[in-house]
Amino acid sequence: MKTGAAPGEIRSKTPTLAAIQGLVHEVLDGVIAHMSGVLEADVPFINEVSFHLQQMRGKLFRPVLLSLCNRAEGDPDPREISLGSVVEIIHLASLVHDDSIDESSLRRGMPTLNDKWDHKVSIIMGDYLYSRAMSEITRLGDLELIALAARVTNDLTIGEMVEIAHHRKLVEDPAQYFYLIEKKTASLVATACEMGAVIGAPRHREALAAYGHRLGMAFQLVDDLMDYGGEQAVMGKPAGSDLKEGQATFPLLAVLPRLSPAERRSVREVFRPGGPATALEIERVVDLVHERGGIEATRRVAAEYAGRAREALTGLPESPAREVLEAAVDYVLARDR
Amino acid sequence: MKTGAAPGEIRSKTPTLAAIQGLVHEVLDGVIAHMSGVLEADVPFINEVSFHLQQMRGKLFRPVLLSLCNRAEGDPDPREISLGSVVEIIHLASLVHDDSIDESSLRRGMPTLNDKWDHKVSIIMGDYLYSRAMSEITRLGDLELIALAARVTNDLTIGEMVEIAHHRKLVEDPAQYFYLIEKKTASLVATACEMGAVIGAPRHREALAAYGHRLGMAFQLVDDLMDYGGEQAVMGKPAGSDLKEGQATFPLLAVLPRLSPAERRSVREVFRPGGPATALEIERVVDLVHERGGIEATRRVAAEYAGRAREALTGLPESPAREVLEAAVDYVLARDR
Repeated sequence: MKTGAAPGEIRSKTPTLAAIQGLVHEVLDGVIAHMSGVLEADVPFINEVSFHLQQMRGKLFRPVLLSLCNRAEGDPDPREISLGSVVEIIHLASLVHDDSIDESSLRRGMPTLNDKWDHKVSIIMGDYLYSRAMSEITRLGDLELIALAARVTNDLTIGEMVEIAHHRKLVEDPAQYFYLIEKKTASLVATACEMGAVIGAPRHREALAAYGHRLGMAFQLVDDLMDYGGEQAVMGKPAGSDLKEGQATFPLLAVLPRLSPAERRSVREVFRPGGPATALEIERVVDLVHERGGIEATRRVAAEYAGRAREALTGLPESPAREVLEAAVDYVLARDR
Repeated sequence: MKTGAAPGEIRSKTPTLAAIQGLVHEVLDGVIAHMSGVLEADVPFINEVSFHLQQMRGKLFRPVLLSLCNRAEGDPDPREISLGSVVEIIHLASLVHDDSIDESSLRRGMPTLNDKWDHKVSIIMGDYLYSRAMSEITRLGDLELIALAARVTNDLTIGEMVEIAHHRKLVEDPAQYFYLIEKKTASLVATACEMGAVIGAPRHREALAAYGHRLGMAFQLVDDLMDYGGEQAVMGKPAGSDLKEGQATFPLLAVLPRLSPAERRSVREVFRPGGPATALEIERVVDLVHERGGIEATRRVAAEYAGRAREALTGLPESPAREVLEAAVDYVLARDR
């Protein structure tokens, strides 16, 4: 969605990641230390791989949200450290298997497990991470939390299976795309928020789960938009990996109904089963997405989800945590600028 | 261990799989039906893959043991159907990832997921199975059972990681081999027995867990012995996959101390990092294992574990279930005849 604001103005309104993390900075240090304990094994090789994984420090976005939701009303519950580790380890496990599937060689600037070791190590270490996360949450002894962890782990796999099923297929129904990103991305963001609410603000559990779901949807939409180079994209600049990988995301689905038969054929060509498409074919589709408003349409839907994420917070008492949860919405929307 | 019995005599004393399954036959029908419900998804592609997996009907050995232990004292608990499904699904998940790692194309006479589809499907469907198993056991609402499932899932991954770490390395310490098979195989057999005890015979929980552990150890030792062709092996007949895959199992470890320097060199050659060894090199090592008593040594250790498995049952009241648990020990020991 084009805004009238000058670039400088947008930047000044956009919270930085550091600002989002600030309020729970110490909790995050605790999460990082705790994760290392949870992942420790008697087997030196496991510790070696696990150490490498822990060097791939991410944004810890899900533990941040969990701890913020834990602070939505009254005193925070100390289980946030353990639960933050659990959601981050589940996230890490899904990335490890994702990288193995996509044969990616870099993640967060470091070699992936399949690159540094091989696919065997990726498969089993992913399993190791998932099962350690389940053991850790079981240790807390709360059935509701365990059920949330089991469900979200399953949701992530459903999302991945849908993605595999859609590979090199131009699935035109946006509902299928939204189902996919709900399972693949929004589910874990929602679960992080819901877990934080369960331990710290149970009265707001539904609201915070809804907040997380909507924020997660916006997050993935912006991700998919970034793959088309966002608004800054210059025509002819190569698009990211999604089209090359044969995945049709919202920016493309949004423009499909506006294309001429010839243009639709050129899109279909990119998804031919033999794949992969040539750079020129991909460039043509990227241009179409830009020319026909695919970027704006995606930003509009992301902004809708973001707006509804903010709405979900209206019943919460005023608090520093609520302010940061609101700022997190702006942060997610502005990631591509 | 050579016995003086004629082949016919051995056969008549050996219980068949059908005899082991007989007492809990109806429960197994229930487990099969229940599994199909547990694995059902909203995504047609998942159901397609899951249907294929369910056609690969195994021996259901772990659900059988679970239900037998559930009958060790008094009335059986009906949760055995759900728990039997959980242990079988966890087992299936580990096989799916195992096949992907080993690039096996056949399992139980049917194409593996990596053969019929690809590695992506194997990785994610394995994850799907693990997470469905955790969701199902969480539904039962018993923290002890959940903790057992989480722990065993983790143990399986630890076993696999040790196996990967030992790949093409001649790890001579038998303790490391026993650690590996404990994690990889005995853990799930023990857990099946322990779960059965938790729901049906809590007084015998420790004894039945010990029974399962020892039975599982014997099971894997016999498996590893079968890979050398067992006692029936004719010299020069090609051995199975373990040596080719660069895995040193007990039959080989048992003869290592008895080898001459030249013979040890020929063993080392089979494990050279570049691998794989030639058929001739493998044949030479298989012959050495047979000539120096590796088969008998392995059978002896398996028989020791089997004896200790039987001992673990001595505190149980007389019952048809106990008789079958005893018969299961003979069944495991005689699998290679």
